[in-house]
Amino acid sequence: MDNDLETRFSLANTLGVEAGAVALDYFNRRDTLVIETKRDLHDVVSVADRNVEKLIRQRVADAFPNDGFLGEEDGLEEGTSGYTWIVDPIDGTAPFVNGMPTWCISIAVVKDEKPVIGVIYVPCLEEHYAAAAGQGATLNGKVLTLDPSRNMQNALTGIGSNNHVTPERVGEIITNVLARGGNFIRNGSGALMLAYVASGRLVGYYEPVMRAWDCMAGFCLVQEAGGRVLPYPLSGENLMAGHPVLASNASCYEDLLAVHNS
Amino acid sequence: MDNDLETRFSLANTLGVEAGAVALDYFNRRDTLVIETKRDLHDVVSVADRNVEKLIRQRVADAFPNDGFLGEEDGLEEGTSGYTWIVDPIDGTAPFVNGMPTWCISIAVVKDEKPVIGVIYVPCLEEHYAAAAGQGATLNGKVLTLDPSRNMQNALTGIGSNNHVTPERVGEIITNVLARGGNFIRNGSGALMLAYVASGRLVGYYEPVMRAWDCMAGFCLVQEAGGRVLPYPLSGENLMAGHPVLASNASCYEDLLAVHNS
Repeated sequence: MDNDLETRFSLANTLGVEAGAVALDYFNRRDTLVIETKRDLHDVVSVADRNVEKLIRQRVADAFPNDGFLGEEDGLEEGTSGYTWIVDPIDGTAPFVNGMPTWCISIAVVKDEKPVIGVIYVPCLEEHYAAAAGQGATLNGKVLTLDPSRNMQNALTGIGSNNHVTPERVGEIITNVLARGGNFIRNGSGALMLAYVASGRLVGYYEPVMRAWDCMAGFCLVQEAGGRVLPYPLSGENLMAGHPVLASNASCYEDLLAVHNS
Repeated sequence: MDNDLETRFSLANTLGVEAGAVALDYFNRRDTLVIETKRDLHDVVSVADRNVEKLIRQRVADAFPNDGFLGEEDGLEEGTSGYTWIVDPIDGTAPFVNGMPTWCISIAVVKDEKPVIGVIYVPCLEEHYAAAAGQGATLNGKVLTLDPSRNMQNALTGIGSNNHVTPERVGEIITNVLARGGNFIRNGSGALMLAYVASGRLVGYYEPVMRAWDCMAGFCLVQEAGGRVLPYPLSGENLMAGHPVLASNASCYEDLLAVHNS
């Protein structure tokens, strides 16, 4: 691993755990948090999201002042080094504020429009997913390798949705997965479900529209574990827009692509 | 609490934790388990389910030899005391075998066709839900009381499905929840999602067809936390059949009933 990548990977891993501890402290006293809504009543944010992002943003700026930084809460600061950090401080804010454990810290680093680092940390279960380009993916230090015998028919598929997609389209996606002999999970955190694809807990993940901070770390993990992803554009204005997200065990890719195209 | 109920409640609580430890041990070495399928490739079972049920069945028979016992894996043994234990040794076997933490031990006791004890234990998170008729519901000892300000529009709804229901119907249910301004979770364990209703993490749960061992403990928890449930018949052959399950915060009941009737 080249030194530029290695030092950033090391920081990303440290920050995942450190930010996770701060977020978990907020989670354990979530009854005291003021919850605000964004696009609708399900699109929520609290001081926990904002302060965890500030922490990560500051630590990255201190260590790599020329790197770009895109966070869900405070937007994009462009850099000059060629590296851009793309961070969702708490992915799965709805589970978080409702007291469910399925939320995570998602930290990616992108270079040349490709994710080269992906770290996802799950505080409630102390699960630490980490991947860097060409280095493989791990969960709590154990190497992740996808099993080609798993497919949509004998394993579980993760499905995401948000208010960018009509209720009818979401219902249609679910129907299509079931009609193909699949079964589905929606745990409220797209980043975590992508980490589950990398670890073989889910065979694939599909969501019609996702933002870069929700999926870049997961993409790096899935690809380094041997899976496939639908190309996600990051050039120019694409970086700030939403795009379809499909990531899976290669054995499930065509089935999930058919659901996407249906 | 009368003595008959109190002694059984005490055993149910002990067994939830004890069975949870045995199940967690299987979970931690799940790569070595032989997974068998039942009705389809998603309807799975392993020696973990069978042995956890045997443990609970034996301990109940030792303590209350005249009680009935209905377990998912080994069926019904009728009793003469008027009390029947209804147990799902591992609810959420699909998450369990795939390595996700959303599975639980579900232990109910029914008398006069009503659940009078409900214990749900979640080993991966050490969460212990407990309720007895007239005694309230608790999570790790903390009293659970539903918040009337939560509704389908500002909180999350749990949805379940299995192969007794068509793919089209499941898609329609999801569409209807979203069209009413709701959002949904499916974590793979109906019993756990019912416990989440009791603890306010979800505002309601709906599944078109569920068996008694999946829902009786959850019903007791939801009712003792102040929620409402759609009547579920247990008389005669009903005990072994599947029926619709709807349990919710009272503030969400009419919305969820409309989804059921749609």
